[in-house]
Order: sequence, then structure tokens, then C-alpha cells
Amino acid sequence: MKQLDKITPRDVDFSQWYTDTVINAKLASYGPVKGTIIFRPYGYAIWELIQKYLDGKFKEIGVENVYFPLLIPQSLFQKEKDHIEGFSPEIATVTRVGDTELPEPLFIRPTSEVLMANYFKNEVKSYRDLPLIYNQWTNVMRWEKTTRPFLRTSEFLWQEGHTVHSDRKEASDLTLKILDIYTEFANNLLLLPVISGKKTEREKFAGADSTYTIESLMHDGQALQCGTSHYFADNFSKPYEIKFQNKEGKLEHAYSTSWGVSTRLIGAIIMTHSDDNGLVLPSSISPVQIRIIQIKETEEVLKVSNDIKNLLSNKYRVDTDKTDKSFGFKISEAEIKGIPLRIEIGPRDLENDQVTISRRDTREKIQVNVREIEQAIDQMIKEYDANLYANALKNRENRTSKAKTIEEYKKVLESNQGFVLVPFCGEVECEEKVKKETSTNSRCIPFEQDNKIENCFNCNKETKLKVYFARAY
Amino acid sequence: MKQLDKITPRDVDFSQWYTDTVINAKLASYGPVKGTIIFRPYGYAIWELIQKYLDGKFKEIGVENVYFPLLIPQSLFQKEKDHIEGFSPEIATVTRVGDTELPEPLFIRPTSEVLMANYFKNEVKSYRDLPLIYNQWTNVMRWEKTTRPFLRTSEFLWQEGHTVHSDRKEASDLTLKILDIYTEFANNLLLLPVISGKKTEREKFAGADSTYTIESLMHDGQALQCGTSHYFADNFSKPYEIKFQNKEGKLEHAYSTSWGVSTRLIGAIIMTHSDDNGLVLPSSISPVQIRIIQIKETEEVLKVSNDIKNLLSNKYRVDTDKTDKSFGFKISEAEIKGIPLRIEIGPRDLENDQVTISRRDTREKIQVNVREIEQAIDQMIKEYDANLYANALKNRENRTSKAKTIEEYKKVLESNQGFVLVPFCGEVECEEKVKKETSTNSRCIPFEQDNKIENCFNCNKETKLKVYFARAY
Repeated sequence: MKQLDKITPRDVDFSQWYTDTVINAKLASYGPVKGTIIFRPYGYAIWELIQKYLDGKFKEIGVENVYFPLLIPQSLFQKEKDHIEGFSPEIATVTRVGDTELPEPLFIRPTSEVLMANYFKNEVKSYRDLPLIYNQWTNVMRWEKTTRPFLRTSEFLWQEGHTVHSDRKEASDLTLKILDIYTEFANNLLLLPVISGKKTEREKFAGADSTYTIESLMHDGQALQCGTSHYFADNFSKPYEIKFQNKEGKLEHAYSTSWGVSTRLIGAIIMTHSDDNGLVLPSSISPVQIRIIQIKETEEVLKVSNDIKNLLSNKYRVDTDKTDKSFGFKISEAEIKGIPLRIEIGPRDLENDQVTISRRDTREKIQVNVREIEQAIDQMIKEYDANLYANALKNRENRTSKAKTIEEYKKVLESNQGFVLVPFCGEVECEEKVKKETSTNSRCIPFEQDNKIENCFNCNKETKLKVYFARAY
Repeated sequence: MKQLDKITPRDVDFSQWYTDTVINAKLASYGPVKGTIIFRPYGYAIWELIQKYLDGKFKEIGVENVYFPLLIPQSLFQKEKDHIEGFSPEIATVTRVGDTELPEPLFIRPTSEVLMANYFKNEVKSYRDLPLIYNQWTNVMRWEKTTRPFLRTSEFLWQEGHTVHSDRKEASDLTLKILDIYTEFANNLLLLPVISGKKTEREKFAGADSTYTIESLMHDGQALQCGTSHYFADNFSKPYEIKFQNKEGKLEHAYSTSWGVSTRLIGAIIMTHSDDNGLVLPSSISPVQIRIIQIKETEEVLKVSNDIKNLLSNKYRVDTDKTDKSFGFKISEAEIKGIPLRIEIGPRDLENDQVTISRRDTREKIQVNVREIEQAIDQMIKEYDANLYANALKNRENRTSKAKTIEEYKKVLESNQGFVLVPFCGEVECEEKVKKETSTNSRCIPFEQDNKIENCFNCNKETKLKVYFARAY
């Protein structure tokens, strides 16, 4: 894939702008198999930071990491009916090894509920063995017709949590505890103002009793599902026979959950924060938070650069651009890569003991005394992150509407693409019709509800539910 | 897989002892597809500690992590002749998605040289783009006829480094720098006294110019390859057309390397250090380094346990067994899991301000004043690790012999299975014959050579080379 010289302006062609940004920031390239991508070092470094944070949070609440096999025998997969129906058409299937046909086709995992359930079945005997709270960081495959780097690819990276419990409420509470971790992570670290809530019947995960979700709104007004947490009740433990002896000595089916976020979060970050000059990254997951650029390499400049780097490295991820490229090129590279702050150091500024700090988001520059640099950086990083969040929230608020009827809904979407809160009956057939007519669907039933009885925006049935609909990636 | 009550003694049946240890220590279970395993939390935690250490070391020398796709189109794989010949019979092949046959079969990566080469081809234009020093932590598949948890499984986890350089020597030096990291890691952290050296022509990696290796000797005298580093010269850059413009402005083929260690290291640790009571783990990769066990839960015992845990947690991975199992059960569980030190705290000892510390390796117990516990632990961990290494080294030394002829070689192997240093011509056909006749092969050409001319132990040809042969896993 060739390096582009220019990024298409975001308002001219959002989709092309997105691809241009991914390529020019060197986040990813296309793989040789259609719909796959190569995570280049800069893109993978963002994923590593996401992993590090979430993995720490999971471990704090007692999650244990495991690794389950890539391949699932076809016969094992087919026990849970909704699950196989949901995934069948997308499953890459291994049918031979070398020149030898396999006796049974093997599925590359699209997700690992089935393998986990089969393991839990053998492992769980008594309520004393429970809960088991597992997670794995893996690759999974779901063959997709239309793909887009990070957002939708045939293979992607994710974490998938799988838990099994002796108590219905404990399982259900766990899905919400995980949703809280996701929500807090998205809001405070990725600076994505997400709406959390529950999926409708039509949109819930294949095999789930309930699916919880965090939904964010991209700059262009399309929604993106950023993470989901599923409560299965005993939907998997029945077909897969996960039974335990409860405190009363009776056999009972166990209660299970699963939950995950994927590399699609990188897509969400790009489409929420970035601009016509390339990436804009939240400081928490920016592989380089501060880049030092020397205007001229005098002895004094080198010394001060080094001192500043050492000083700030205790707290921040700092690097120095040591290439022999021009000053202008270095600046635009730092911009394309979305590095939050640049420190530009030149001999003239140093005469007054000053350096220049530039913010990536506002492109504002300030001159700071060398002795006050740490304070200035602390302050600017805070303002930078706050500004990213505020902009994203403003965009979401500007793009959130209400509608009472399907006609109103269509009109609103046409004039202001975004979230539309509608009274909705919640039924599958009704949502199916909306989807067919508008190519949009429900995103989530927000936890906050006014509980007023109104009429479903589409079928007119009485309902208390208010639901966010949107066009989505 | 059912939990066994007893571990088969190591000297009665080494292979059964190994499996019993893996299962009883809850490191792994078998997956539903033949030859695959499930990494249970305790087994995966060891892998995480291995990853953390090596990943840090790699990053120190400028390695960048990436992620390349799982699937490789058949046509792309076939460009390097030796490579396809080496891997073909073991490759799991995806031929359909859902009900649809794919136009071209896709291989699940057995290793990623081909994908990397194809990427480097597009990425590398000038010597200024080089070197690229990449690594990825992934799953790979190689279908194996006989499998054994960790040692040889159809799917395994590993890191695979892939680099490309403008300079032949720089590439070759990098493979040795990586070998140094592996050697130091194996010796000092895994406490595996490895021999490092070069593979013979027959044993080198499919497509490599030279393969370097670290080889260790298991308790039963069979060798295990623990890590390899390959220098490819331009063997991949020619068929895959990785060319760069050199400083003289001419197009030149680039020089590449690859290197890896896998979850097989966990097998090496088990088969080197463990005993009839279960696992014995080097402290560096032990998920729990110190376990506190309370003899009786008095208020005083709980308080002291807590104080000790807080004190030691700054330096060590410490936990407290809080289950309601018996004291005896807790002790044997800590032993089976190979936890280096246990602190046993009871009311009687506390009357004298004492606690008991037990070592897993020697099963030695000492009584220590509560106020001196940190010092005592520091000292004991050091001695524990030193003892593990010394025992492994002694085993290797006792099991290392020399032989001058094939008859002597066979006799030596029969009486004392282990490494045998022999004068060897290094030729493929000659090694082929040795392999056929003895089911053993060369492990490595050690870096230290006496350079005396002798006669090949098998074909009698004159040679300077001394080579280690052994039966291997």
C-alpha cells in the first residue's frame, strides 16, 4: 500500500479521510488475505496500552487469564442453536492438514463460548468450584463482506471474558461490573463519551439472555458499539451440561457470562478525535505523549533536550525526533501521528531560557521557561485531554435528537445524523421493519429511563421504553 | 480430564510423571481438538511472566511489536522452496467460509516469515528505511503426530521476531544478540543451564543460512531445544523481492533474520526442576513466590499473616491460602504447584515471635523471628534458585559424555542418556544415517571448539568440528 502525501479532508469524504489517516499515521496496512490488516508498530503500541490498562483492571477484580485453542470441532459448536445460527455464515473452516482431509471440519473461533462451556462442564462439580472468572487476549475470525481497518476485519484482536457462577444474581452483577470498567475506560481514558445500556432483543448476542453495551458516536454521526457484556443465564450451561452441586446438595445448571472489547476501539478513537491533519490521540493511549523536536542541533539545544527528556520520562512517554528530516517534516509527522504535545527547542528561545510547547488538538503554542516545564506540561496534558472529551461530547450532544414517529425519525436522521431517542416497543419484528426501511437499528436502551408511557415510534404500540437508534458502523 | 490423586514417581515412568505433574498442578488440560491444550490460569500466568521479561528485554534493544494476520494464501507461501517443503505436511488449511468454498486455500501460519517478507517487500525502499526490527506474540499451528502438553502441541504460543537489514553483518550480529538474550534468560531466570551454539546443516530451519540454538538437558537425559535464532542472509529477500537502494544508489537484496521461543519453555522448566511431589518452579516465573499458610486462624495469626503479606508484597508475589481445606491439604497443594517458599504461621510459634519457612526444593524448614523475616526470605530465595540451577547443571554434567566412534556413541547413550560430544563431519547425509540408526540427532555445534582435527564419529572423514548429539524431545 503506497504512502499517501495528503489526507483527504474529513468533511469531503469521511470514509476516505479515515483510511488516509490510518495509512499515513502508519497504524496499519492491508494483509494479503482480503479483509485482514497488519498492525504496524504504531498501531500495535496503542493496542498494547489498551491491553495494559484493562488487564490491570480485570486482575483487580479477580479475573484470571487463560488461553483456549483456536479451533473448535464443528459438532461441539452446534449444540447451542442461536449461537450457531448467528455465526455460521462467517466461520472460516479448516478441512485439511497438508494433503490429508480431516475427519471433521474445524472452525476457527469467532468467539470462545463453546470451548469455555465444554471446559466448564468437565471442571465444575460443586458450588465450591465457583465462580470461575476467566479472560483471554486472542485473535478471532469472522468473515465480513465489507471491511475497514480496525472497525470491521476478518481477523481481529480482542479480549474475551468468560465466567461461570453458582448464583444467577452474581453472574448478572458481574456483567454490569465489567460494563462499568468498560464505561470508565472509554470515558476517562479513551475520552469517548459513551452511552451505556442494554441491547434490544434483536440486537443482543447470539445465545445471550441480555447484552449490555457501550455505544459511542463518531464525528460523522454514525454510532459505534465499543464493548459488550453478556449475561447468559443458563442458556449455555443447559446444552453444554454445566452442572454443579449446590449448597442443598442438588444438581443445578450454572450461570455464565461473556464480555469483550476489541481492536475496533482504535477505530473509535480515530473517528472521534482525529482531524484533517491526521490522528489526534488521547494521552493515555498515545505511544508517544511528548515529542521533542530540535530546531537546530547546537550543543546547548542537545543538552537542554536531554535534560528535559530525562525530567519528563519519569511521568510521560517522551521521545526525541533524531532523524535528519527537515523541521517542517518533523512537525507534520508528529501531527499526523497525533502526538499530544511537542516541545520545540531552538537556540534563540534558549537565550531567554525558553522552549515552545505545541498542542496537537488546538495547534496552540506557548513559550515556557525551561525551569517551569514540568508544571506547564502537566497542565497542558490535562487541558488537552479535557478538550478532546469536551469536543466529542459536544458533537454527540449536537447530534442527538428525539423523534415520536417514524416519519419524524427519518427526517431527523436526514438533517442531523446521530443518535435519535425514540419510544420503542422493543419487539424483534418491529425493529426488523425499521432496519429494512431505514438501514438503521437500535443501539441501546439507556439505563436512565423516564418511564412515561408513549407510543412506539414505528408500530404505535404503547411502551415505556425509550431507545437510542442510529446508523452504525 | 480427571484430577489425579497421585503423581507417578519420576523414575518409574518419566513420561507419565510429566503428564501427572501438568494435570495436578493445574497448568493445562487437553482441548477438544487432538493435540491442543487449554492453558489454565496457573499455566498461563507462567507464560505471562516469561512474556513480560522477554518483551522488556526486546524493547530495550529497539524491537517493535506488531501483529500480522493468521492466514497466509497458499500461493504466497510457496515462493521459498525449502520453507514450503519443511512445513507443508503440518499446515492446517482453511478451504471454506460458511458454506462457500474459497477460491484459494489459506494456510494457518506455522510461522510468519512469508507474511513478513511480503510486507517488507512493499515497505522497504531505501537503506534509510532499515533496519526494521519486529516481533509478535502469537499463536501458530503445526500439526504434530505425537503431542505432549507444552512440548509439542498442534497449536502453541510463542514470540516470533522478524528483522530486515541493509547490512549482512548487522543482520547476522542481531541473531547472536538475540541468542544472548535467550541464553541469559534461560540460565539466570529459568535456571536452565543451556548450551548455546549453531545447528548443523540437517537441523537448521527451513530456509535459513544459519540457525543458532540454546539446548537444555531434561532430568531424564533427553535434550530439548529451548529457543532458536535464524540468519537468512538473502534467502527470503530474493524470492520475495525485498530490495533497497543502498548508499551507492544501487538496488540490493536485504538481509533478514527470525527468532523465537515458545510455550515449550514451560515444558523445559517442568522436566528440569520438578520432582515426585509435583512442580518446582524458579522464583522468577513462579506466579506465587511465597504462600502464607495459617496453622490455626487466631486473631494474632491473622494479624501477623497480614503484616507479613504487606511487608513482602513490595518485593515478592505473595498470597495467603484462605480456603477451608485442611492444613495438610494446603501444604501438599503448595508443593504440587511448586511454590518456592511457604510461611507457616501458628499460635504456638508466635508465642516465641517465630514463624516457620519451608523450601519447596529441599523441603527444609527453618524457624525465623518475625522481625527478621524479610532478610530470611531474601536469603532463602537466593539459595533456592541457586540450588535449582546447581542441580540442573549437575544433572547435565553427569549426563554429558564423549565418544569417538558410532559404536562408542551407542554404548554411551545406552548406559548414560544425555549429551554426547562427538567429532562430526557436519554433512547432511552422514547425520541422516546416524538419525536412522540411533533415533538421535545433533543438538548443536557449541561455540567453544578445540579445533583439533579428528575423524567423524560416523563416516570417519577428517573434521575439526565437535558437535553435541542426543536423543531429543
